[in-house]
Amino acid sequence: MNPRVLAIPGSLIRQVAARKRPDSVDLGLGEPTLLPSSAHFEYAMRHALVRGVKYAPNAGIPELRDAIARHYGYAGMNVRDNVCITAGSQEAMYVTLMTLLDPERDELLVVEPAFPSYVKMAALDGVACRSVTMSPGDGFAFDAERILAGVGDATRAIVICSPCNPTARVLARDQAERLVLGLERRRGAPVWLIHDEIYRELTFVDDAAYLAQRYPYTVVTNSVSKSNALTGLRLGWILGPQTFVEQAIKAHAWVTSCTDTFAQHVALHVFSTPGGLREHAGWYAQQRADVVAALDECGLPYAPVEGSFYACVRLPEGTKSLDASNDLIERHDVVAIPGMAFGGALEGWLRLSWVAPFDRVREGVKRISQYANALS
Amino acid sequence: MNPRVLAIPGSLIRQVAARKRPDSVDLGLGEPTLLPSSAHFEYAMRHALVRGVKYAPNAGIPELRDAIARHYGYAGMNVRDNVCITAGSQEAMYVTLMTLLDPERDELLVVEPAFPSYVKMAALDGVACRSVTMSPGDGFAFDAERILAGVGDATRAIVICSPCNPTARVLARDQAERLVLGLERRRGAPVWLIHDEIYRELTFVDDAAYLAQRYPYTVVTNSVSKSNALTGLRLGWILGPQTFVEQAIKAHAWVTSCTDTFAQHVALHVFSTPGGLREHAGWYAQQRADVVAALDECGLPYAPVEGSFYACVRLPEGTKSLDASNDLIERHDVVAIPGMAFGGALEGWLRLSWVAPFDRVREGVKRISQYANALS
Repeated sequence: MNPRVLAIPGSLIRQVAARKRPDSVDLGLGEPTLLPSSAHFEYAMRHALVRGVKYAPNAGIPELRDAIARHYGYAGMNVRDNVCITAGSQEAMYVTLMTLLDPERDELLVVEPAFPSYVKMAALDGVACRSVTMSPGDGFAFDAERILAGVGDATRAIVICSPCNPTARVLARDQAERLVLGLERRRGAPVWLIHDEIYRELTFVDDAAYLAQRYPYTVVTNSVSKSNALTGLRLGWILGPQTFVEQAIKAHAWVTSCTDTFAQHVALHVFSTPGGLREHAGWYAQQRADVVAALDECGLPYAPVEGSFYACVRLPEGTKSLDASNDLIERHDVVAIPGMAFGGALEGWLRLSWVAPFDRVREGVKRISQYANALS
Repeated sequence: MNPRVLAIPGSLIRQVAARKRPDSVDLGLGEPTLLPSSAHFEYAMRHALVRGVKYAPNAGIPELRDAIARHYGYAGMNVRDNVCITAGSQEAMYVTLMTLLDPERDELLVVEPAFPSYVKMAALDGVACRSVTMSPGDGFAFDAERILAGVGDATRAIVICSPCNPTARVLARDQAERLVLGLERRRGAPVWLIHDEIYRELTFVDDAAYLAQRYPYTVVTNSVSKSNALTGLRLGWILGPQTFVEQAIKAHAWVTSCTDTFAQHVALHVFSTPGGLREHAGWYAQQRADVVAALDECGLPYAPVEGSFYACVRLPEGTKSLDASNDLIERHDVVAIPGMAFGGALEGWLRLSWVAPFDRVREGVKRISQYANALS
């Protein structure tokens, strides 16, 4: 068998999340608890009953590609040819990395703390990877100088998730500007930016940067998973310059052929409904305000919650995050993901997902705070 | 960008199929024209409206994995742990090749004529590929001695599609027995067999071989696409020994994470319905009988139609299949796929897909026969 596959460890996040008991306070898995709007499914169902579910074109249903390109309206990537529909943002990222990077010579730079998938996807394709770590002292704020300092001669792409899973930080416009200027000043082949925008609709600050608005060598990945509580639908997309997207479509065509036609019609209805992508945004804004108030009240140190539905809390000095996660599950019936699952930079922290009903989140935060107080 | 992606040519099959005009007789794309049963969708819809569409486990919904393992009942692969649900049989094959083969040293053997995806997927992962060709004089019947003669020192897996796209031949039990004996006699690491069973429910002979029944180093890929007219649903699976499947699940987890939960419920209803996988089998058996009669009547030479919904017809000596395909589209308004799209072995032949209403198929066969007669 392929040693690259044999070498992949299982997902620590899923292993921790799987230890949940029926009564546990679940601050583990990053999945909305809201229900999606039934109207989106009813639209897709009407289509399926009349027309069946035929193969879509490799790149996706033209109307959906149009709708996505128009909705974001990024300069130079606002028409159909700039979009490829994929099996969730996971395949979008997998195909993007495979298409952009030559395993023989290119290197991917991952801005950490980061969701572990980027590094594992690169490993699967034999692509070298390096990481650059944002500062814990600064609550992991995205810092252009630090990122630029991490760029090596072989670096051909940088992956940034903003709003960030796990840190909940958002790349600010001034930092994005500095990052882009720094990249533009470099000689040689351009360094691509891959902006994982999956938490875009859960942004709670005013100065969020969208790299595709500013830098032509940007590829965006996204999906309806988090915005519309459609995680299980596996409907994502790649947005990028046409020269890149036409290559990505070929890779996508041999990995999964095309994306579920039923799911594409669900997404088409989301994009055709005014405010469709924002239908849960109000709920998240309120929940975020309540969660931040609860964190302030209990005194747990945390990184600013600027976006996504996570919050990272700092454990007392010297506490191993995996030990804390184990203790919390076994003795306090709270599931929280140990920071070390997201790279060494988040060791000593826990990632809390705050998608449960607020009284449950508050109860979980209270138990973690009591646990932390007892340690220090 | 990745030179392996840049090197991939577009799909000739899709290019030819795209030239179809509204009135064309379409014997091109391999997609059922029947509609799927609405009951399968209504079941999935009820689930989605009540429970939403949450992430499924990476390997798939346990009940669906159970149902698939039980349905086929292959010895040593008849429980949940032998199944991984994928985004169609395309991802099933992609993940299987990636998991089985070490790009540094292993080689894939493709039994041709074959659908072009196997070779292109291997190229994408940097895996070396060789092919072994069945004999045109024998109507491309699967021949164990020929296949065994193609096995090299580095060959670690052989991919066989039976019933075959494009040839419509079915691997017979005596040939399968000889193939397996030949592989078992070899020294060193086992050579895996990958049996692409996507046309399994469209088998029109009694002695079809199922390699997983006889050889423990078999991986099966399949989907509900062809059996239930659900091509656009992208719901497939891998069936194999547990030691293999647990590795394949890890690769799948980083390529697409998990498969569409809605689609998995559609498939669960198919497998829970007695005869659910065979609901279109009667239609295909009748259509096949009618198509064979039409081919016999018009005098076009063809390879025996033992399975799938294709028929391969031989053009007059010296005719290039791409020229014939172009002529037929432009002058006779018939879409047929040139044999050379499936490797050199099928040059001089056309692949006809006979999923259209029978009067259209008969009309197409008549026009091709007239065209061929005018050439010879």
